[in-house]
Amino acid sequence: MKRTCEGLCPRFQEAMEVLAKPWTGLIVATLEDGALRFSEIGARIAAIGDRILSTRLKELEAQGVVRRIVHPGPPIRVEYELTPAGHGFRAVYEAIAAWGSALAEQQKQAPEPE
Amino acid sequence: MKRTCEGLCPRFQEAMEVLAKPWTGLIVATLEDGALRFSEIGARIAAIGDRILSTRLKELEAQGVVRRIVHPGPPIRVEYELTPAGHGFRAVYEAIAAWGSALAEQQKQAPEPE
Repeated sequence: MKRTCEGLCPRFQEAMEVLAKPWTGLIVATLEDGALRFSEIGARIAAIGDRILSTRLKELEAQGVVRRIVHPGPPIRVEYELTPAGHGFRAVYEAIAAWGSALAEQQKQAPEPE
Repeated sequence: MKRTCEGLCPRFQEAMEVLAKPWTGLIVATLEDGALRFSEIGARIAAIGDRILSTRLKELEAQGVVRRIVHPGPPIRVEYELTPAGHGFRAVYEAIAAWGSALAEQQKQAPEPE
């Protein structure tokens, strides 16, 4: 039986495209406590540049992870918050991190063969 | 408070490096039922080339996901099987796929703003 990408597999690939990008995890984690302005997100993540943060936020918005809220002013205030699905990232993060720990443990037990 | 990659975060990154590569998911899924020879893995995965399969198997071995078993012959027979940690991939796959479904649902509910 030949295997191809069917059933749940496209969902896995779609989610992986979100997860695999640098900074995604930290941006989502930063928004877990509530809505933040662009400058507030930047201030909480060490070393991220404004341009890359802007790109990531647009991608996360398109993918249904983040929602952009415009509070009509004056002055206009823009905030970013996690969607309900965005909050589901935490469970994924924990499953992946737990697996990473298990792999690290496995590598210790079975050193490279001679 | 500035956030950087601390605590569980390196484990997340390490696991993501494994997960994000093309074919990894299918190769691991194919080995879930038991040990297989190289040619058997290739025969079960549509469209994967021998060279890329060989590269992925070496990486998965180095990362503690897959174990290479040499049955002394004659003739020598080489098989690949999941390590105990490798079997943990299933839980990760399901968490990620479930999140992918939630994101797809979210995108339907909130179409792109004008």
